[in-house]
Amino acid sequence: MLPVPSKFTLVVGHGEGSTPLNAFDAALIDAGIGNLNLIRVSSILPPGARFFPELRIPPGTLTPTAYGYLTSSRPGEVVAAAIGVGFSSDTYGVIMEYEGFCTKAEAETRVRAMVEDGFRARGITLKDLLVLGIDHRVEKIGCALAAAVLGY
Amino acid sequence: MLPVPSKFTLVVGHGEGSTPLNAFDAALIDAGIGNLNLIRVSSILPPGARFFPELRIPPGTLTPTAYGYLTSSRPGEVVAAAIGVGFSSDTYGVIMEYEGFCTKAEAETRVRAMVEDGFRARGITLKDLLVLGIDHRVEKIGCALAAAVLGY
Amino acid sequence: MLPVPSKFTLVVGHGEGSTPLNAFDAALIDAGIGNLNLIRVSSILPPGARFFPELRIPPGTLTPTAYGYLTSSRPGEVVAAAIGVGFSSDTYGVIMEYEGFCTKAEAETRVRAMVEDGFRARGITLKDLLVLGIDHRVEKIGCALAAAVLGY
Repeated sequence: MLPVPSKFTLVVGHGEGSTPLNAFDAALIDAGIGNLNLIRVSSILPPGARFFPELRIPPGTLTPTAYGYLTSSRPGEVVAAAIGVGFSSDTYGVIMEYEGFCTKAEAETRVRAMVEDGFRARGITLKDLLVLGIDHRVEKIGCALAAAVLGY
Repeated sequence: MLPVPSKFTLVVGHGEGSTPLNAFDAALIDAGIGNLNLIRVSSILPPGARFFPELRIPPGTLTPTAYGYLTSSRPGEVVAAAIGVGFSSDTYGVIMEYEGFCTKAEAETRVRAMVEDGFRARGITLKDLLVLGIDHRVEKIGCALAAAVLGY
Repeated sequence: MLPVPSKFTLVVGHGEGSTPLNAFDAALIDAGIGNLNLIRVSSILPPGARFFPELRIPPGTLTPTAYGYLTSSRPGEVVAAAIGVGFSSDTYGVIMEYEGFCTKAEAETRVRAMVEDGFRARGITLKDLLVLGIDHRVEKIGCALAAAVLGY
C-alpha cells in the first residue's frame, strides 16, 4: 500500500510566464511548491492528518496534492483559484478546489459551498472549514493556483 | 520503487451535485470510492493482480485508479462511462476507459472494442474481458463514472 | 514519504488507434512505456537523478512520468510533442513538456525555451539541457507523445 499522508498545508500562488505551462510553473513557485513533483489526487484529507503551516519537503519529492488553477492569455482578465478543506469531528475530511474568472472572495465563497455540499453528499457533519483563495490580473499569460499539499 | 498493485476491482457510479466537481464527487461516492485519494493512472493491470469484488481500503489512501467519467449540466442529457479490463493468459492486462453521451450498453460496447484494440496493438492474445458501464440522465448537473481501482 | 526517483530517461513515440485513447496507447507502446502505469507528475528532476538510456521497469509498475501529447483525428494534420530537461550544477532540474500542431523541430525549440524560462523563474543557472521531440502525420486518429520517465 502507498503510505497514507499524515500532514497537510494549504498554499496559493500566482504568476506570469512565456507559455501557459510556464505561468502555471510560476504560480507553483510563488506558492512554494515549484520544486516538487506534484501528483494530483481527488481529494480526501486522511483521518488524523494535521495542519502544518509550512511543510518542509525535499525537491523532487512525489507529493500528493489537490489543486485548482486557471491560466489565461487575455491581458486584463482576472483569474482566481481557491482550495477548501472541511473537517469532521472523528473521521476524514473533504477537500474541494475551484477555479474561475472571478475575484479571490468569490472563489473562496464558491469553494466553501462545494465543501459543504461534499459533506452533505456523505451524510457527515462539517465541524470546521479552512479556505484559501487567490486572484491574479493577467499581464500577458497568467495563472492563479490554490492547493492542498499532503505530506508525511 | 513504488509498490506494484496486486488486486483490482471495477466500480461504477453516478450522481448529481451543485457543481461539476460535486457531481463527480457524488459519482465517486456512489461507486464506493468517494473517500479515497485517487491517483489517476494510464492503465495496465499488473501481472498476477487478482480480482476482488470489494476492496477494503481505508479513507484517504492513495489509490491508483484508471477511470473515465463525463459530467454534464444540460438537464435531460444522458452521460455514460465504461471501464474494460482485458486479461492475457500469462502477462499483464490492459485497462481502457470510455466516456460519452450514450447509453450504458453503447459505452460497454465501445470500451470492449478499445480493449481488443489495445491487445492487437501489443501483439498479445486476449484471453478474457471484463466490462462494466453506467449511464445517467442529468437532472441539473450530473456525472457518470467507471473505474478500475488498483489495490494491495 | 513516497520514495524520490533516482533515475530518469526521455522517450518519444507516435501511433494510430481506433480512438484517441487507443492512439495515445499506441504512442506509449511505440515509446516503450505502454506496459506501465504512468502517474503524471509536474515535473522536477530530483537532485542527483541519473540518466539511463533504457530504464528496465516491470509491467504494471506505478511510474512517475512527465509527458506531453497531442491527439488528432484530422487526416493529414501534423501533431508534435517534445520533452525537455534542464540541469543545474548542484540541485534539482526542471522538466517541461510541449505539444502542438507543428514539426518536431519546432516542438523542440519551444520546449527548450520553456525550460530556460523555468530556470529564470527560479533564479538558478542552467548548466545543460536535454531535449527530445517527435512529430506524426495523422492517418485516421493519431498521437505524438514525449515523456520524461522517472524510476528507481
